[in-house]
Amino acid sequence: MKLLQDRILSDGKYLGNGILKVDSFMNHQIDPILMKAVGEEFARLFEEVKPSKILTAESSGIAPALATGMSLKLPIVFARKNKPVTMAGADFRETATSHTKGGEVDLVVSSEYLKPEDRVLILDDFLATANTIAALVRLVKTSGATLAGVGAVIEKSFEGGRQVLSGVEVPIHSLAIIDRFDGDKIVFGGE
Amino acid sequence: MKLLQDRILSDGKYLGNGILKVDSFMNHQIDPILMKAVGEEFARLFEEVKPSKILTAESSGIAPALATGMSLKLPIVFARKNKPVTMAGADFRETATSHTKGGEVDLVVSSEYLKPEDRVLILDDFLATANTIAALVRLVKTSGATLAGVGAVIEKSFEGGRQVLSGVEVPIHSLAIIDRFDGDKIVFGGE
Repeated sequence: MKLLQDRILSDGKYLGNGILKVDSFMNHQIDPILMKAVGEEFARLFEEVKPSKILTAESSGIAPALATGMSLKLPIVFARKNKPVTMAGADFRETATSHTKGGEVDLVVSSEYLKPEDRVLILDDFLATANTIAALVRLVKTSGATLAGVGAVIEKSFEGGRQVLSGVEVPIHSLAIIDRFDGDKIVFGGE
Repeated sequence: MKLLQDRILSDGKYLGNGILKVDSFMNHQIDPILMKAVGEEFARLFEEVKPSKILTAESSGIAPALATGMSLKLPIVFARKNKPVTMAGADFRETATSHTKGGEVDLVVSSEYLKPEDRVLILDDFLATANTIAALVRLVKTSGATLAGVGAVIEKSFEGGRQVLSGVEVPIHSLAIIDRFDGDKIVFGGE
């Protein structure tokens, strides 16, 4: 997706150690026009797998998931990291390790919103080591729902997430794939 | 906003102690069609105060803020509760007490994304005790930006948030105002 690659080149900041900062348009401040285009592109890529629901993790996954849900007219469920008091019933729970947050986080989804009849499209902001996405895949499996597809806005292919997800037999698409950082230069690859 | 009131009546669940569960369409699962309508209604209400930016708090504020930002074509900034490693620079920080999460949370915004020239519209999912919104108001003041308006999707007027915000001299709008719970019946009021 050229619009996204151009934005990463103009406004992304490489912080070293494989960490790309996209806080100015995606992860802290959100550009609504870019995000709408992200949603439309995910909709185009995943329409054919006929998802019935989108699953993401709070917080940075919510914007691309909502934009896609608006485009496909599908409900979005975001896995919570802290269970609020309103979530009193049965739930599905998986643990993921976060590099940018530090430490482990639980991802919790109420069993009310993942049902065996659902076809789930998992979306997130980044596909890097795939820790978060792999935890979401496990949540879908535990719920008895069918996984329909996996999408990430930005993939850092050098962190091996695709290999971690190699057993996942559904389409996986990222809208921008970073093959490597060459000094402070960002080198994109393809799927 | 009748669409929202109807949805609260059909799918909201009163859990007692003044706590309303709206997890099936807003706070855990999101209905994208309702959320688009919420964004359009906030856009209609706040267009005249000419905001340049929308500020909310993760996670449940992100969806209504993004929907509104898409409608008004304005950037959205969400205050973070945990500072990720990508947020290395100077920041503004305020503490809010959360009833539904339990305990105190820090709300952090990078000083890169709140500037003195900004006119900030604060949006959140709930206006109840106004703890979160008051912390966001303090963040705006600390940054030197101008507060332009305050909006909440659902207000629980009996928790006194409007009184807490009485010193805030900008328009405050909620899309559905719950005056009280009568047994398990929800009684709406007006602004």
